[in-house]
Amino acid sequence: MGGIAVDRLRSVIERVERLEEERKALAGDIKDIFSEAKSAGFDVKTVKDIIRLRKKEPSEIEEQETLLDIYRRALGM
Amino acid sequence: MGGIAVDRLRSVIERVERLEEERKALAGDIKDIFSEAKSAGFDVKTVKDIIRLRKKEPSEIEEQETLLDIYRRALGM
Amino acid sequence: MGGIAVDRLRSVIERVERLEEERKALAGDIKDIFSEAKSAGFDVKTVKDIIRLRKKEPSEIEEQETLLDIYRRALGM
Amino acid sequence: MGGIAVDRLRSVIERVERLEEERKALAGDIKDIFSEAKSAGFDVKTVKDIIRLRKKEPSEIEEQETLLDIYRRALGM
Repeated sequence: MGGIAVDRLRSVIERVERLEEERKALAGDIKDIFSEAKSAGFDVKTVKDIIRLRKKEPSEIEEQETLLDIYRRALGM
Repeated sequence: MGGIAVDRLRSVIERVERLEEERKALAGDIKDIFSEAKSAGFDVKTVKDIIRLRKKEPSEIEEQETLLDIYRRALGM
Repeated sequence: MGGIAVDRLRSVIERVERLEEERKALAGDIKDIFSEAKSAGFDVKTVKDIIRLRKKEPSEIEEQETLLDIYRRALGM
Repeated sequence: MGGIAVDRLRSVIERVERLEEERKALAGDIKDIFSEAKSAGFDVKTVKDIIRLRKKEPSEIEEQETLLDIYRRALGM
């Protein structure tokens, strides 16, 4: 491999490693926020459910909840 | 590595490979059942939600749904 | 939901649950084999590497090892 | 839920959502670097292998490669 290619390869590797470090730091920050939320008395599972719901359109949520309700009733749950 | 160790190593590998094959076959069977359910007009996401719910105690489901409801109301969702 | 649909839904759910149980049992069996291999003195990580290699064609393995070697040398590793 | 708790819950949710956005952006950046590396003629799988190797101590790499070599020879691979 020529010197220029090696420099380029090294640059690729180092940039990816830096971004992976940042990603790991963000994952740690998210974990810390949930720990803090738990200490403040919130239920972390429910908070995560809320975050998941907020990614959906209200009409999508309603449709899915209606369907789930129909299936549960049908099965006597 | 002695001959007995090699035989034993080979046996370990082959047994794991066989079980992995079976596991892959089961994953295919599950996928087929969901395809069949979809063809029969069922909503696959909802069926999966039902299967997930059935793994929980009714009291656990109720508690989680009550909490989610409280959080949603609090946030005006 | 009509009675026939409910029966069909129930059948779908129960078949999936049975297959999931089998899948979980297989995962347990695989874990047991690795525990047994470890007790017999084998290095489990290496056994898993071997199983991964056996899924590839020898020519594919050789090509990937040659490339990795070139990159490592280029980087002075 | 009291007003202060609601504000705090909202703050938790919004901070997590912001960090998740950043995390997604970083994942996109990493993907872009690999695309760029591929366009420059590098083998992406090998680059990823190199990044994985760089996380390990040289002595750990050597030990694992020695073991893998022993197992491969023993199995006639």
